[in-house]
Amino acid sequence: MKKPTLYTSLSPALLHLYDLDGAIVVIIDVLRATSTITTALFNGAKCVIPVDSVAKCIELGKKIDGITAGERDGKIAEGLKYGNSPFEYPSSFIKGKTLVLTTTNGTRLLQMALDEGAGTIITGSFPNLSAVCDFIVAQKRNVVLGCAAWKDKFNIEDTLFAGAVISRVKEHFDINCDSSIAAEHLYQLSKDDLYEAIKPTSHFKRLSGFGLEKDMRYCLTPDQANVLPVYDNGKLIIYKN
Amino acid sequence: MKKPTLYTSLSPALLHLYDLDGAIVVIIDVLRATSTITTALFNGAKCVIPVDSVAKCIELGKKIDGITAGERDGKIAEGLKYGNSPFEYPSSFIKGKTLVLTTTNGTRLLQMALDEGAGTIITGSFPNLSAVCDFIVAQKRNVVLGCAAWKDKFNIEDTLFAGAVISRVKEHFDINCDSSIAAEHLYQLSKDDLYEAIKPTSHFKRLSGFGLEKDMRYCLTPDQANVLPVYDNGKLIIYKN
Repeated sequence: MKKPTLYTSLSPALLHLYDLDGAIVVIIDVLRATSTITTALFNGAKCVIPVDSVAKCIELGKKIDGITAGERDGKIAEGLKYGNSPFEYPSSFIKGKTLVLTTTNGTRLLQMALDEGAGTIITGSFPNLSAVCDFIVAQKRNVVLGCAAWKDKFNIEDTLFAGAVISRVKEHFDINCDSSIAAEHLYQLSKDDLYEAIKPTSHFKRLSGFGLEKDMRYCLTPDQANVLPVYDNGKLIIYKN
Repeated sequence: MKKPTLYTSLSPALLHLYDLDGAIVVIIDVLRATSTITTALFNGAKCVIPVDSVAKCIELGKKIDGITAGERDGKIAEGLKYGNSPFEYPSSFIKGKTLVLTTTNGTRLLQMALDEGAGTIITGSFPNLSAVCDFIVAQKRNVVLGCAAWKDKFNIEDTLFAGAVISRVKEHFDINCDSSIAAEHLYQLSKDDLYEAIKPTSHFKRLSGFGLEKDMRYCLTPDQANVLPVYDNGKLIIYKN
C-alpha cells in the first residue's frame, strides 16, 4: 500500500507550495501559542478561539463572556486581560471557560491553511507531541507540518518540533522533502538539550529579555499537556476518537 | 567597531524579508548553475550572461555570437547548444567566449536581488567557496546569502553551502538569524561527506536519474574553480581587486 506523504513548510510564506487539499495540517508555534493552546485545553478549557487581532479578541470576549488573551511585544496587549504564557491557564482558572486568544504568526497560518483547503487542522507543540504523532499515524492521510515562524522568517524552535514529529513517525510516511530531512537532522543534533539548542535563536533572545525562561523550558518539554487540539468551525477543541 | 550583519534567505520566496539595500547578495545555486558559472569563468570565459528564458537565450546568443546553454528537465533545452554541466566548459572550449546561460531558480533570484536594491551581487558554490569567503570578509559590508532553492522550495545543497560560508566567516559578522544558525549546524553535521549528505535530497534523486553523479561530486568540492563571479551590468565577470 502506498504511504501518505509528509511535507514540512518552514514558513507561512512557503505554505502555498504544498498541496493541502484534504491533508492534515499541523500548526506549529512552539513559543508559545500552540503550547499555550494545548495547555489550556488539557487544563479543562471548553475551547480556544484563535483570532488575528486585539480588536476582534475584545469584541468576541465580550460577546461570549470569554477570557481575552494575547501579547504584543512581550506584554499583555492593551484591552486584553491575560497573556501568552501557558502558566496563566491552570485548571483552577481555565476549567470550563472559553479562551479567546490572539496570536499573530499562528493564527495567520491557520487561516491560510483553511483558505488552501486543508482537510483537518490540528495544533502541535512539545507539550502535546505524542498526541500529534499518534493522530497523524492513525489517520493515514497526507500531512503538512506548518511552522508559524516569526513574521515569515524561518525559526529554529518550530523546525525542531517538526523534526521531533518526523523522527517518530517517518516510517509511516513517504517523505520526499528536503525541509523535513533538514528538520529531522536539526532535531537529532539537539534533542538531548533542546533548551541549550535554542539559546542562540532570535526568539530565545526576545523572550529571555522578558524573563520567560521558565515558559521556554516548559514549551520544550514533551507531553506535559498531551491532548490534541483540532480546529472545528472557528474553535479549537480536544479531538475525541 | 560594529560588525556587519549576515543573513541567510533559504528560498527566493523569503528574500523580501531581508534588507538588501547596499548589501552583498550571494546567489547560491549549487546544483548546478553557480558551480557552472564559476567554472566557465575560471576556464577563461569572457563573461557569463544569465537570462531567464530559452527564447532570450537564443536571441541573445545569435546577436552576440555567444554559446547558448541551458537545460529544462535535465535535457539541453530545445534551440540551445549546451547544457548545465560544468564539464561542458573546459578551457579548450570556453576560453575567450561568452556563455549565455538560462537557468530558472538562479536567474530569477538574481533579478529579485537587483530589484530589491542589492549593492553587489556575486555567485557562490563550493568550487569557489574560498573566493566568496575572502571577498565578503574583506568588504566589511552586510551580506545576505541567497539560496536559489528549487521552485521556491527549501533545498539542502544550497543551505549546506550557506553553512560552509558561515562556518568560515562567522567571527567577522553579527549573525542574529535562525536560518544561518541552522545552515551552519547542517553543514557541520555533513561536512565530512557532503555527497552522502545530499543522497536523500530531491535534487540528488532528480539528477542521479540523469546519470549526473560526477557533476554532483564536482559541485560539492571546494575551490576547484576559485574565482569570484560578480554581476556587472547584465554580465557575470571575474572580480578584480
